[in-house]
Amino acid sequence: MKLNDNFQKLAKNYLFSEVAARIARFKEGNPGVDVIRMDIGDVTRPLPKAVISAMHEAADEMASSATFRGYGPEQGYQFLREAIAANTLDTDGNPVYDPDDIFISDGAKSDVGNLVDLFGSDARVALMDPGYPVYYDSNVMAGREVEWMECRPENGFRPSLPQERPDVVYLCFPNNPTGVALTRDELQRWVDYANEVQAVIIFDSAYNAYVRSADVPRSVYEVPGAERCAIEVCSFSKSAGFTGMRLGYTVVPKTLAGFFSDGAPASLHDMWRRRQCTKFNGASYVVQRAAMGLFTPEGRAEAEASVRLYLENAGKLRDCFAAMGWQVTGGVDSPYVWALDPRGRDSWDIFQRVLEDCHVSVTPGSGFGDRGRGCIRLTGFNTAANTELAIDRFRKNFK
Amino acid sequence: MKLNDNFQKLAKNYLFSEVAARIARFKEGNPGVDVIRMDIGDVTRPLPKAVISAMHEAADEMASSATFRGYGPEQGYQFLREAIAANTLDTDGNPVYDPDDIFISDGAKSDVGNLVDLFGSDARVALMDPGYPVYYDSNVMAGREVEWMECRPENGFRPSLPQERPDVVYLCFPNNPTGVALTRDELQRWVDYANEVQAVIIFDSAYNAYVRSADVPRSVYEVPGAERCAIEVCSFSKSAGFTGMRLGYTVVPKTLAGFFSDGAPASLHDMWRRRQCTKFNGASYVVQRAAMGLFTPEGRAEAEASVRLYLENAGKLRDCFAAMGWQVTGGVDSPYVWALDPRGRDSWDIFQRVLEDCHVSVTPGSGFGDRGRGCIRLTGFNTAANTELAIDRFRKNFK
Repeated sequence: MKLNDNFQKLAKNYLFSEVAARIARFKEGNPGVDVIRMDIGDVTRPLPKAVISAMHEAADEMASSATFRGYGPEQGYQFLREAIAANTLDTDGNPVYDPDDIFISDGAKSDVGNLVDLFGSDARVALMDPGYPVYYDSNVMAGREVEWMECRPENGFRPSLPQERPDVVYLCFPNNPTGVALTRDELQRWVDYANEVQAVIIFDSAYNAYVRSADVPRSVYEVPGAERCAIEVCSFSKSAGFTGMRLGYTVVPKTLAGFFSDGAPASLHDMWRRRQCTKFNGASYVVQRAAMGLFTPEGRAEAEASVRLYLENAGKLRDCFAAMGWQVTGGVDSPYVWALDPRGRDSWDIFQRVLEDCHVSVTPGSGFGDRGRGCIRLTGFNTAANTELAIDRFRKNFK
Repeated sequence: MKLNDNFQKLAKNYLFSEVAARIARFKEGNPGVDVIRMDIGDVTRPLPKAVISAMHEAADEMASSATFRGYGPEQGYQFLREAIAANTLDTDGNPVYDPDDIFISDGAKSDVGNLVDLFGSDARVALMDPGYPVYYDSNVMAGREVEWMECRPENGFRPSLPQERPDVVYLCFPNNPTGVALTRDELQRWVDYANEVQAVIIFDSAYNAYVRSADVPRSVYEVPGAERCAIEVCSFSKSAGFTGMRLGYTVVPKTLAGFFSDGAPASLHDMWRRRQCTKFNGASYVVQRAAMGLFTPEGRAEAEASVRLYLENAGKLRDCFAAMGWQVTGGVDSPYVWALDPRGRDSWDIFQRVLEDCHVSVTPGSGFGDRGRGCIRLTGFNTAANTELAIDRFRKNFK
């Protein structure tokens, strides 16, 4: 049987599976020790009450023939697509999305991974190093070579332009793992570049809810020209605590045009619709209805309060590591803090030291790529108390 | 930008999107007319009460920090995998699955589509004609050539063995669209064949809950040797009314071994785990918890009552068309009835006639492949009253 040989090129374990396995091993050897999780970017605050209410109502609808919902539209329910569009505004208060361009999904990770289906196996892909492992792994599985756009400490972990013309550029801002956010002018340069070389930008916007700086756009479409080159992937995970609920959306504008290799015109919107109709059957009705609770004043306020808490935690972590002499990015416009060890230790060594000495788990920077070596990623997804406790331990152990 | 040229080979619309569009057009032109939907295989009965209760409890868990669930395991929660394994027994009462071999998903359609990732782009794929369009479309998207295993009226729409040695064989029993179920001996021959030629069987078992005949296995693993060649894809959609909830599972036994082209050994279980960890983030916690209601005596009884109703409807449809002189399969061990028009009309013509004259929508058989020409597929997923009403109209119009 002819298997996909590209799997041989992948690391045996997905990064976060490996981190989880090491934490589990430590806990086994140290029963009773409570590890503060600052590794995986998972939220900890409960869902807003308005979301819970909407979910209960949806559950009751499923209990009666008259209101039962079977298969929904693959692209997602109109009510949710319209609510997202009506509530995503630029700084002038104008809508950023056309609801018809929005595809509801079971989460940004699925979409980011599945978008590889749109491109040829010989497509040239440019990825940030360090970056979210799914970009690399999903492209390697599809048999592609990858060019790295290096993000170095000396340029504040901002990516350099690709050396060779790419077909697809993956950008993620506010960035995972570095927490770096791009200003409008910086993002405009990337959009202009993509349009100039006719590349598609896959813009991972999973952390857009954390943007506070006035000159940082929340959506790539706030920048002129993006509607001709960019696909935006969004999530309810980090903005509303939906990591366990599974809901996201991807925007593929109808204005995003390309060509097949025989010169025939192609609509990436139509291609993605065809892909989703074939290999996806829509997100759960109950989960889509639950998300509607976020578009009430109470739901919005509760979700926003959680985001604010996570941001405050991240800010404290940033200050702590900066004060200890580490080079730090993120913690502003981002729930992530990225810290470069001034003593140049290996990321997995730091991981192990922090775990054993501080009883805190972090993510080793090298897991995000070669340019993450010597770094760790920490998250603000915690209680204020746990964050303070971890900071105390860092200060004591990292003198 | 180098796009995936294989999209050019696909029909513009996914079959059921096209059917839905034509029904919508008819309704626009005929306001007030109520169309009985017997096209798409979507359930109509509400969820069992035990499922609704479990869902409410899960929703409440998400409302408090102490019980909130964020990211779950990509492979699905252990509680659900163990419940499935404990409740799937062969005729001797022995478990059919190892819980560790089960991967929970957001539905069989996603898994069936995504399984293409495991195989090389040059893998030879054998598909039944007629068959569920997702098999063909997903393999074409992946750049593969397909060999058709013809299912003809003269052999009761059972597939013939492939002419050339395949790498992957897709089988679906009880079959969609023909409703044909294979006996133990018939299935054994396919498993023996796959082991002999070292092919993988992707066994779509979405309709296993409808099996009533004693000599028809509900799982491919009831047949010896399947654990070395078969992947089984299952769903809660048709067994428990979960079409709008989105939940399924795929079983990839650890005993299913292969080789990469350089001769290195491969575990398809490990490959699928790596694929799912990379491009999927688990099914919704609330939906997984809801499914636990099906493993209570009340939940099981309610789900079973719906299955029985759909089967009775299908049986009546079968009898109706048989009495009118159509060649009929299914309606036994299956919610589908497959009927070949004795007058040899085109499938889409019959679709249009049934829609306009009987106000019933069916699925044109040709949408499932060339060998479906002249056929239509009907479903028992309806109320008994609507089924009777449709049968009355068929009798009046098809004399």
